[in-house]
Amino acid sequence: MSVLHFPSRLLEASVNEFSKLPGIGKKTALRLVLHLLRQDKTDVFQFSDTIRLMREDVKYCRECNNISDSEICDICTNVHRDHRIVCVVESVKDVMVIENTQQYSGVYHVLGGVISPMDGIGPGDLFIDSLEKKIENDQIDEIIFALPTTMEGDTTNFYLYKKFEKKPVKITTIARGVSIGDELEFIDEVTLGRSLINRQLFESTL
Amino acid sequence: MSVLHFPSRLLEASVNEFSKLPGIGKKTALRLVLHLLRQDKTDVFQFSDTIRLMREDVKYCRECNNISDSEICDICTNVHRDHRIVCVVESVKDVMVIENTQQYSGVYHVLGGVISPMDGIGPGDLFIDSLEKKIENDQIDEIIFALPTTMEGDTTNFYLYKKFEKKPVKITTIARGVSIGDELEFIDEVTLGRSLINRQLFESTL
Repeated sequence: MSVLHFPSRLLEASVNEFSKLPGIGKKTALRLVLHLLRQDKTDVFQFSDTIRLMREDVKYCRECNNISDSEICDICTNVHRDHRIVCVVESVKDVMVIENTQQYSGVYHVLGGVISPMDGIGPGDLFIDSLEKKIENDQIDEIIFALPTTMEGDTTNFYLYKKFEKKPVKITTIARGVSIGDELEFIDEVTLGRSLINRQLFESTL
Repeated sequence: MSVLHFPSRLLEASVNEFSKLPGIGKKTALRLVLHLLRQDKTDVFQFSDTIRLMREDVKYCRECNNISDSEICDICTNVHRDHRIVCVVESVKDVMVIENTQQYSGVYHVLGGVISPMDGIGPGDLFIDSLEKKIENDQIDEIIFALPTTMEGDTTNFYLYKKFEKKPVKITTIARGVSIGDELEFIDEVTLGRSLINRQLFESTL
């Protein structure tokens, strides 16, 4: 379908809105919109109102920049978590993924991006101040970098490392290596090389 | 991600709404919602309002049941189209697809489904009355069946054929055959068999 002939401007406008979403083309957008047209009005209004309300009311935690329903997020207000260990991640999604492992009991710090000169994103565009303040107030023992293994992620790691290396805080990064279940022959050379360099005693990997 | 830990109920509600859409799983829904959170409020409100307005205001043409912004759709009000030839289709999408070929100058009749006893859809659930009325008032010379080649489509064809065969109207169906560009070895036997039976003089296929 090269150019679609829409029978209605209302339909066309909705298809255009849906196709602005990432990964949604015109054909998929049309399928979604025609689906919504077949649903009850109340269901469609609920869809519409939920999205609107979320964008209107969602907050970002003052402490860690995670998405939250209140000024301080549930993780930062949780007294059972270790507030002296902070995991630095790029986005809210990364917090959800790490929470899902149920292996981490520290808190987070969501940068809201990584340094990317190509996209005009510098350190000033990221949420770093509150992390710096916590470190300077000696509230943190360790920060763990869990940023993407891209050039931008590495640049950001390096920037933060240089910024904090003189401070009394331990700086670590999550282990990189061969994923569990992966066949060696399909691993890229850099990962395999690093996983050899960073080999661990056999006991500790159990 | 088996069970997602959402940092916000507003976020979770939006992800749930998106994942009700066909073909959208929880992971895709989360990606779409996080994308919307990064957009300007006005853009997200426009998305939300456009969907709401469409569901609220969209109309179905009184004549042909196509989606429309007014009581009678643009195709049915177009005096340059041949109103004595009616193409019977299952859905609005089929109208758009046929319009896109730019090979048809008649009008349409959107049934809004096909007869499917398994899904509890009988002739009474389809938009047939206005077609019958037009035929009885001798307003139509030809109806063209362009329904899906499924058991349900065939059942509906047969039902409509039986209903109208005694009326003074020519009943045709769109040609079925080997698609242009298709290799014969990959065509199913029924299609290939029918395309042999319904072979045409060579000139007419140019």
